[in-house]
Amino acid sequence: MKKVGIAILGLGVVGGGTYRILVGHRDFYAETQGIDLSVESVLEPEAAKLAALEVPESKIALNIAEVVCNPDVNLIVECIGGTTAAKEYVLAALYAGKTVVTSNKELYCKFSHELERAAKRHNAGLYYEASCVGGVPIIRTLLDGVQANKISSMMGIINGTTNYILSKMTEEGVSYREALRSAQELGFAEANPEADVEGFDAAYKLSILASLAFHTKIPFTKVLREGITEVSEEDIERGRALGYTLKLLAIAKQSSHGIEVRVHPAFVKREHPLASVSGNNNAVFLTGDSVGELMLYGKGAGELPTASAVVSDIIYAATHTEHKYSPFKNMAAADKTTVFVSDFRSAYYMRLTVSDKTGVLSKIAAVFGRNHISILEMIQAEKAGSEEATIVIVTHETHEAAVRSAVAKLNASDIASVESVIRVVCG
Amino acid sequence: MKKVGIAILGLGVVGGGTYRILVGHRDFYAETQGIDLSVESVLEPEAAKLAALEVPESKIALNIAEVVCNPDVNLIVECIGGTTAAKEYVLAALYAGKTVVTSNKELYCKFSHELERAAKRHNAGLYYEASCVGGVPIIRTLLDGVQANKISSMMGIINGTTNYILSKMTEEGVSYREALRSAQELGFAEANPEADVEGFDAAYKLSILASLAFHTKIPFTKVLREGITEVSEEDIERGRALGYTLKLLAIAKQSSHGIEVRVHPAFVKREHPLASVSGNNNAVFLTGDSVGELMLYGKGAGELPTASAVVSDIIYAATHTEHKYSPFKNMAAADKTTVFVSDFRSAYYMRLTVSDKTGVLSKIAAVFGRNHISILEMIQAEKAGSEEATIVIVTHETHEAAVRSAVAKLNASDIASVESVIRVVCG
Repeated sequence: MKKVGIAILGLGVVGGGTYRILVGHRDFYAETQGIDLSVESVLEPEAAKLAALEVPESKIALNIAEVVCNPDVNLIVECIGGTTAAKEYVLAALYAGKTVVTSNKELYCKFSHELERAAKRHNAGLYYEASCVGGVPIIRTLLDGVQANKISSMMGIINGTTNYILSKMTEEGVSYREALRSAQELGFAEANPEADVEGFDAAYKLSILASLAFHTKIPFTKVLREGITEVSEEDIERGRALGYTLKLLAIAKQSSHGIEVRVHPAFVKREHPLASVSGNNNAVFLTGDSVGELMLYGKGAGELPTASAVVSDIIYAATHTEHKYSPFKNMAAADKTTVFVSDFRSAYYMRLTVSDKTGVLSKIAAVFGRNHISILEMIQAEKAGSEEATIVIVTHETHEAAVRSAVAKLNASDIASVESVIRVVCG
Repeated sequence: MKKVGIAILGLGVVGGGTYRILVGHRDFYAETQGIDLSVESVLEPEAAKLAALEVPESKIALNIAEVVCNPDVNLIVECIGGTTAAKEYVLAALYAGKTVVTSNKELYCKFSHELERAAKRHNAGLYYEASCVGGVPIIRTLLDGVQANKISSMMGIINGTTNYILSKMTEEGVSYREALRSAQELGFAEANPEADVEGFDAAYKLSILASLAFHTKIPFTKVLREGITEVSEEDIERGRALGYTLKLLAIAKQSSHGIEVRVHPAFVKREHPLASVSGNNNAVFLTGDSVGELMLYGKGAGELPTASAVVSDIIYAATHTEHKYSPFKNMAAADKTTVFVSDFRSAYYMRLTVSDKTGVLSKIAAVFGRNHISILEMIQAEKAGSEEATIVIVTHETHEAAVRSAVAKLNASDIASVESVIRVVCG
């Protein structure tokens, strides 16, 4: 039986889960896959983590050199995170001709070109399913399941932390701060939640997934990114009254106009399948020219779901002797001919505060009209005991630039002040 | 650029779609996959089908020998269906060392062992993603996406025709006959619909998918199979009033008691994600020990979705030089040690006709009690102007054998006659 020696770098949540699965399922993989997956080396500075998993003394490496020079190690799993030590170690492994499996979205997103070049030169494999959407095999699907298709769009809930927070705000009517605190207490959010709540995590993933879907490198810097820290209970509630659910969506579209990639809060209709993806679940919808609509749904994060992706990559690497890399050439940067669309089309929800005077609505309508924005719904909600009123407007699909221009005009006028603007997904 | 010569056997719905995609996307695959996929040969007896797709005269083969002996053909796509000519031709192709891609569920289900043995002996690839659930890459997911997992259960809507019929009965309150006629008019059902409505199609697919999920051959003959021809509008309507939606489900479970595989109509709670899979959409839910719940949803049939799976398999085969076969040994028949569970557990919906007399309900309850069946709900609906009444019962989870015994007891008694029994999926 083919034996594959594995080293794990970092015994955090995902690395620890990977260790536990590999040790616990060694016989199962021998029986079902015909391979002997043996953990030969672990690099982890925290003694407590090593002790918690009862890693044998003989398997504990002191530094990366000891790992990459170990002749019993064929494959290295990187679960350190970040782009400093992780990058150095992954490159060291690839230079030594060892196949790398990583769960590090930031690393692969930012340095895929450098990593793939090193992998190819040294005939090593490079696998990163665990970098995106936890246990959901979206990368395998894009690479080996729907390659026949020209993919026109992809839309997903691909960050569990923000989906937990928004679900809690929606279901319990609590504030962003309160929902964040709950997520932190339950371990769904980090002490410093910036990477999740500001949309960086989702944008890294979208950069990777859109690059695979559209066969051209989509740099992270091209992703329009807005987080959820400014989301108010009031807008969630007003949206709900109109039949919408608020989600942090990652959207990628390719059309004759170019490619658009964006991560931002968005209202989806309550009947849309993504509206019912709650808590720390994730889902990706994609549309291909022959497959039509396809959705994958599952756990987007967590110890075992993400380790499921890591170990599935390990098995894939161990049962294939040839390595397949990203099937397109311009991984270094977006091809010069790739056009990115910034003035994309969307529908919009807007909440305005207006002075409660005659003629205000027609003045607002006029500003929208001059910007060629057509209004689907306009609802006025009086504030008791105030000279001001709240108006909620939902537009038909229009251009982003037109909305920005209308918002600037309104805010510069004495007619109304725009309190919030949230994109609405049509269809 | 690597050139792969392709032959297509059968230009029916799927074969025709495959031809159209390959011809239309040849440049796209050259650009994105670095391979030249060229249709070199087509075997189709009907001149009209060849003419409709404008197949060049020089590519039209007269018989299978001409196809398998053609040195320009590396890969053969089988879209003939059935197990006579299709089996002969596929074996001929494999003996000639040509890789085979097939959409034929009956063929792969019944003869996987023979086909795999031929493929291995002659170092040919054998791919069959298109045999199950159309464009949804469920086989790729089982083979290369969630292999790290011990899969405990799989539950799906994997036949588009019956789902269309049941959805129409549910939404419009029409009879089975009427819904079937509509499906036939729209091309969703064959003139002879037996393979779909009697559950054969779903059972072939379940046999293939459960074999992959549980790493042991699950023969088609082990699948409990009940179709939808006896389903009545009345039960759909009464189920709806209780919050259930009727679906033809394919269920596979593996536990310490053994493996259970079954295809039958079942009520699912309206909130269950499978309840909203309507029309000719399909979905598969699976539960793995590390990934947790994972769902794939998409078009389970149709020209282009199924051809998407065929062409994705072609690309996979063309970009891998080594072939991977089913990763378990006992494909010929179920391993002698494999235990199949027939007395599975489920909840049940039952509709009874009873004489409208005092004490009847307690007598019925007594029969259930003696069979250790616990009742969740019992609803009596009077029939106007009749001595008889209808009673609907929903049980807690119990054993199939207990229900069969209780039904036999009731039917043999003068208390009640059991009009229908439908399994109910819990959780």
